[in-house]
Amino acid sequence: MKEYQELSREELSALHAKLSGEYEEAKAKGLSLNMSRGKPAVSQLDMAMDIFDVFDSSSDMRTESGVDTRNYGELTGIPEAKRLMAEMVGVKAENVIVCGNASLTIMFDTVSRSMTHGVLGSTPWCKLDKVKFLCPVPGYDRHFAITQHFGIEMINVEMTPQGPDMDMVEKLVSTDASVKGIWCVPKYSNPQGYTYSDETVRRFANLKPAAEDFRIYWDNAYAIHDLYEDGGDSLLEILGECEKAGNPDMVYEFASTSKVSFAGSGIAALISSRANLEQMQKTMTLQTIGYDKINQLRHVRYFKNMDGLRAHMMKHAALMRPKFEAVLTVLERELAGAGIGTWTKPRGGYFISFDAMEGCAKAIVEKCKEAGVVLTGAGATFPYGKDPKDSNIRIAPSFPTQEEMAQATDLFVLCVKLVSVEKLLSQKD
Amino acid sequence: MKEYQELSREELSALHAKLSGEYEEAKAKGLSLNMSRGKPAVSQLDMAMDIFDVFDSSSDMRTESGVDTRNYGELTGIPEAKRLMAEMVGVKAENVIVCGNASLTIMFDTVSRSMTHGVLGSTPWCKLDKVKFLCPVPGYDRHFAITQHFGIEMINVEMTPQGPDMDMVEKLVSTDASVKGIWCVPKYSNPQGYTYSDETVRRFANLKPAAEDFRIYWDNAYAIHDLYEDGGDSLLEILGECEKAGNPDMVYEFASTSKVSFAGSGIAALISSRANLEQMQKTMTLQTIGYDKINQLRHVRYFKNMDGLRAHMMKHAALMRPKFEAVLTVLERELAGAGIGTWTKPRGGYFISFDAMEGCAKAIVEKCKEAGVVLTGAGATFPYGKDPKDSNIRIAPSFPTQEEMAQATDLFVLCVKLVSVEKLLSQKD
Repeated sequence: MKEYQELSREELSALHAKLSGEYEEAKAKGLSLNMSRGKPAVSQLDMAMDIFDVFDSSSDMRTESGVDTRNYGELTGIPEAKRLMAEMVGVKAENVIVCGNASLTIMFDTVSRSMTHGVLGSTPWCKLDKVKFLCPVPGYDRHFAITQHFGIEMINVEMTPQGPDMDMVEKLVSTDASVKGIWCVPKYSNPQGYTYSDETVRRFANLKPAAEDFRIYWDNAYAIHDLYEDGGDSLLEILGECEKAGNPDMVYEFASTSKVSFAGSGIAALISSRANLEQMQKTMTLQTIGYDKINQLRHVRYFKNMDGLRAHMMKHAALMRPKFEAVLTVLERELAGAGIGTWTKPRGGYFISFDAMEGCAKAIVEKCKEAGVVLTGAGATFPYGKDPKDSNIRIAPSFPTQEEMAQATDLFVLCVKLVSVEKLLSQKD
Repeated sequence: MKEYQELSREELSALHAKLSGEYEEAKAKGLSLNMSRGKPAVSQLDMAMDIFDVFDSSSDMRTESGVDTRNYGELTGIPEAKRLMAEMVGVKAENVIVCGNASLTIMFDTVSRSMTHGVLGSTPWCKLDKVKFLCPVPGYDRHFAITQHFGIEMINVEMTPQGPDMDMVEKLVSTDASVKGIWCVPKYSNPQGYTYSDETVRRFANLKPAAEDFRIYWDNAYAIHDLYEDGGDSLLEILGECEKAGNPDMVYEFASTSKVSFAGSGIAALISSRANLEQMQKTMTLQTIGYDKINQLRHVRYFKNMDGLRAHMMKHAALMRPKFEAVLTVLERELAGAGIGTWTKPRGGYFISFDAMEGCAKAIVEKCKEAGVVLTGAGATFPYGKDPKDSNIRIAPSFPTQEEMAQATDLFVLCVKLVSVEKLLSQKD
């Protein structure tokens, strides 16, 4: 394929006419597809329906330690659920608190608590003039929304296939005491699907923060969400690395089963050092008498252990992989060599990240929407919703069927081409 | 019975010798009973086990509006759960957000949000020099713990059988703009079991707060928790009264099924004006993608409506009533006319409030503990854990069996007598 940049004005005009025609035809089809959010498909949710056979009216609702999960108590979660979540991320159960249904809530509460009460005795952030977070970009919009809500200044850090630009991270963290945190999705990052390299994790663990209350917000959302059967990408376990590096309290890790069992009805965990967990427990004991232990027990009785989790996730993979591949096949066939876009080829997670020519993302998303395909809003993957290059688009293949994904991607590449041609034509004016 | 105060030194000494002997005998029995917390009994939890037959692997998990409860969405709760919780407290479904498993979490988050973001556009409380809450006393320790955690100054307000001393409430709320809230358990109050009179509710609704961000924190924890079949105490619905009084945004109401289905695995609701709910939704959307809708649907399918809830609560009443009566019978038999204690006779809720002679509560609780009966710590029913008269003790009859309650109360009255005699003797020194 000839690169679009090398086409003459006449060739571009002819291409524009052709693509416009195709776009009008596509619009006439009246598509109605949504690939905006990392939402599980119905068939994927169906795979966990057996979980409702775990309990009936005659079930024994006690934990292995004899605690009645139907009553108050066990603020930090039942032992067997701690063990399950610990296995999921490769830590000891003593480093886990199992909470409610959403890791996002734990993250929000962690930032909120730091605002009102500080971190292990530090000054509450609401008493400080300036608090900053580093935000690897593109990244997860809901992370950025939390820090924005609390008036925390966000600083973009470039992502690479090995993780965030660690030169920049090290420099900012070690010199600026107002930098209190960094948002990370270390495995199958949102939206690229990158997994941080061992070197990146070690450099994180060896940071020398200027601020004693600096923490790494390690959102291990896709810890076991592989698309391929070979075990997937491997991520170095950070708690252990931090301990080795003499920074045992530097990381808050978050995980959940929202994309394992049910979105919104799973269990979520906070993983950290004993010192951090003990501080958090002091607040938790005011915030709740306990999380939903019945749902914790339900998950343990159903998944049992890491083998059970893995087996279940391989069923997901069998369903998700063709959807990802449907997207990648169309992108490859239609855009390879055209010089108007690059994209990632994840081996897990929920997203594909697409970078269009500069200044084209908003127009592409708009054009897709007009023809019935909803994508994540352009800019959403950046703090304050501002993509400085207006280039990044997040593709979420999980919810539609494989056929719908192929259809939606056909439209997507058409819009990429059309907008790119318009951009190139306008540059020749 | 002769009042203890009228006894001579000799009579008191003789009584002390007799009671001490009885106490040593009681201690020798090696009791191990706990009436410290409002914890449901096992037999009460067993009554809701059928709820696990509601779903199995073939269940239709969609709401009446067709929403799949297993997936993301419906931040404010599923429509039928809103309706159920609305019926429970007598409001419209549009005034309800159904959240997670604990109303305590909603209360904590509401105060936390006011600290960091203010109330409907007011200055965030963390930016103010002084924030105060009124605390009807004795009251619920976990309310006081939340306000203490956020450095909010707590002011004691005397409780009466009709509710808080409204003269004092009106005066403080209308003259002091740093008073931002009041904690209320309006029906079957914790610990007295008092229900606010219609006049009290109307005076609340007609408050003229000096602070625009003043709110009534209306913890309707025992809305349907009657002990008798005649329908129980009736509480005037406050949202409607506030609206009539031109104060539509002045109340945040909280309710849950923690003591209807399962403690820790129920559903909880926030009830307020549309303006308040809309502000809260803006934060909620950052804090969670949604609460556990499957558990919401489970509750609706099981309880169906107010009739279902009432029928279930009558089963609880049949179990709870004898326990309350066991306590009251012993108190009446052993202490009536002795002038060393007064107590409440609730028609619902989870507690009985006992007032010993001044300066005796701590010693009574201590003596009970030594002999194997754990009560709520003396002072716990007051802000900062400080009962100025050292007089109030909360009795929680729900968890032990009826026989255990009678045994525990026997020991309790013995300790009351013993400590009272010691007190009277020391006054005669």
